[in-house]
Amino acid sequence: MEVAPLSQYRPFTPQDAIELAKTLPGPFAADANLDCHEIGDGNLNLVFHITDQNSDKSIIIKQALPYAKVVGESWPLSLVRARIEREILQEEYRLCPGMVPEVYHYDDDLALTVMEDLSDHVIMRKGLIEGVSYPLFAQHIGEFMARTLFFTSDLGMNQQLKKEQQGRFINPDQCKITEDLIFDEPYRIAEKNNYDVSIEDEAEALRTDGELHLEVALLREKFLTHGQALLHGDLHTGSIFVTPESTKVIDPEFAYYGPMGFDVGAVLANLLLNYASLPGWIQDETALHERETLLLKMVRDVWTEFESRFRALWVNDLVDPMAKTAGYQDLYVQQLFRDSIGFAGAKMVRRIVGLAHVADIDTIPNATEREHAQRKALSIGKALIKNNRRLNTIGEVLDIVSTAVTTTKV
Amino acid sequence: MEVAPLSQYRPFTPQDAIELAKTLPGPFAADANLDCHEIGDGNLNLVFHITDQNSDKSIIIKQALPYAKVVGESWPLSLVRARIEREILQEEYRLCPGMVPEVYHYDDDLALTVMEDLSDHVIMRKGLIEGVSYPLFAQHIGEFMARTLFFTSDLGMNQQLKKEQQGRFINPDQCKITEDLIFDEPYRIAEKNNYDVSIEDEAEALRTDGELHLEVALLREKFLTHGQALLHGDLHTGSIFVTPESTKVIDPEFAYYGPMGFDVGAVLANLLLNYASLPGWIQDETALHERETLLLKMVRDVWTEFESRFRALWVNDLVDPMAKTAGYQDLYVQQLFRDSIGFAGAKMVRRIVGLAHVADIDTIPNATEREHAQRKALSIGKALIKNNRRLNTIGEVLDIVSTAVTTTKV
Repeated sequence: MEVAPLSQYRPFTPQDAIELAKTLPGPFAADANLDCHEIGDGNLNLVFHITDQNSDKSIIIKQALPYAKVVGESWPLSLVRARIEREILQEEYRLCPGMVPEVYHYDDDLALTVMEDLSDHVIMRKGLIEGVSYPLFAQHIGEFMARTLFFTSDLGMNQQLKKEQQGRFINPDQCKITEDLIFDEPYRIAEKNNYDVSIEDEAEALRTDGELHLEVALLREKFLTHGQALLHGDLHTGSIFVTPESTKVIDPEFAYYGPMGFDVGAVLANLLLNYASLPGWIQDETALHERETLLLKMVRDVWTEFESRFRALWVNDLVDPMAKTAGYQDLYVQQLFRDSIGFAGAKMVRRIVGLAHVADIDTIPNATEREHAQRKALSIGKALIKNNRRLNTIGEVLDIVSTAVTTTKV
Repeated sequence: MEVAPLSQYRPFTPQDAIELAKTLPGPFAADANLDCHEIGDGNLNLVFHITDQNSDKSIIIKQALPYAKVVGESWPLSLVRARIEREILQEEYRLCPGMVPEVYHYDDDLALTVMEDLSDHVIMRKGLIEGVSYPLFAQHIGEFMARTLFFTSDLGMNQQLKKEQQGRFINPDQCKITEDLIFDEPYRIAEKNNYDVSIEDEAEALRTDGELHLEVALLREKFLTHGQALLHGDLHTGSIFVTPESTKVIDPEFAYYGPMGFDVGAVLANLLLNYASLPGWIQDETALHERETLLLKMVRDVWTEFESRFRALWVNDLVDPMAKTAGYQDLYVQQLFRDSIGFAGAKMVRRIVGLAHVADIDTIPNATEREHAQRKALSIGKALIKNNRRLNTIGEVLDIVSTAVTTTKV
């Protein structure tokens, strides 16, 4: 296994981060007065925000930790993910300029990357919880996913170079986290599972549902074996910075060659988790209805914007002449759609009973409303998983969501 | 790309091979009187057979060439395949002792491997052409495929180590040969295609059959993306040494992580190519019928022996508890079966119109009989490709073979 030499590695202090920033050719002037705060709210990395008190210049220094904070130092993680994250940021920047932070500098031995500061943006999950609208988001993320997935697949890049690239992005430790937390533990008794006792009946139902287990096993097999494109690998709304005009994707440390639908499904799942969290802070019936409609429209739009762009790339930027075979594009997109829906369902389920939750639902102050949101999310998630292999349109998906919500036990 | 340092590489002469053999700790005695012949009949390697005139000891030294002989030096090939071949021989030997040649020594810079001499065996293709029977073959190859595929997949090995192993067996140059010669060129006008003018109508039909093209595109996608197990990658009857009692698999230089059905299909295809070559040298009707029955029984037995062993490993040697999910094994084996049949069909078609043929058919002296055999092989191959996604049993496959043969234009 590729491992960064630990002898050179040390976790940075804010002062270390400032010292490094001073040595960089940019963006700071020689007389910069640098300030640094560690702002990481994840559990795998240190994130230093460095600002110049004499200018409006700022940078981020992100450093991987050799363990997961969430469980102390007992869960060792390869620092290779820092190199992988840095390389995929550069690759995504090349494919979608302006949609990921620019990399200014990196040091693979120290497992750190110096990159563009995006603090004029907010984390999308936070914005959604606060009821902000992002009318350009579906177009932006559709463009991001279409281009990053298409151009790293056998459709859009040389098939031999793709194999070399797949080798460079073998990412076992990060994949293991996904394999355990998404595809395994929610469906059995596991120490890291995390849910309120009030939904023990739901957790029990997840553990005993054979139909569900079979579909999850099939989705997991795809995650393990289907090297279709270079995925972001963790494309939830906490990995997306937004303003109403701009969308920036961050934190691709789970990147590896996997099934395209895993990224598309992550976006859909997290929009649906926010949908399931409603009413949230909304007290007015009309406003609630508008917000629900808006979120379901975002789900629809994310798929349709992605699909139309992906199909346009297929027509205009295909490097594989054989993919022009009549009927192939339709079958490919149909399977990609089904995968996306299945993965979306799996990602919803794990956010309710698994280790890592979403603030959309966890921050609902009223326990009854929170429990109802959890049950809605599970109901939607299970329905998407169970139906993924027979669905054909996003309209059918929204019908299933609607049915799942109305039949959720209150 | 990983490349052996060419500065140290040189193609060996027989004298070089003898010099190397003398330096090895075994198997030769100090007073050995070594003789060496280059016996390679492939087009990618030198194969030196070194014998001791003073004993019955012998070895093989196989050295990869940095180009394909079949098209002169104009088709460069990475020497990395020698390291890959040596590593997979060692892995296969570990999984199936006695079913591959033992590796005695290797030098990755020189792209050579010193291995067990199997010249007491014959190439299975030659044996089949001569009408020899191999009553243990189906059990042996079923065992070989079941163990090598199962124990290198997510079912039978640690899933994180599998990812590392997948990275070590990225094999772009060799895969490119397969992608072009099997999944691309037979279905269009291509310089390297190679067939008699008498079957131009068949070649034309291959180029214009949209239903066939779609199925081939789907099979090719699996070959490109489905990292299911560490394949041999070229498991035809010319890569298998046999006696009536023993089966040894050689030449795994096309090894990579791909769909299991690609190996199973290779064996089935080459048995069916021999079947299509009949009557061959057989003149007696009864003998012909017996031989046909025997070959079709081998096809059936290869699948059933493989399947029963694969399922037994699943029960007894599973390292992935999630694969115990009810119904999963059946769905997995069903898909593996369908893949095997589809790949078998693709491998039959390419052996008739593509660059590399099989002696079973090419050595038929009578032009009319040869043409009939070619048409039968194409007819079977196309039927297997077109039906692969709906087949469930080997019995159905044999019915399709029978129908394809009886409807072949004479």
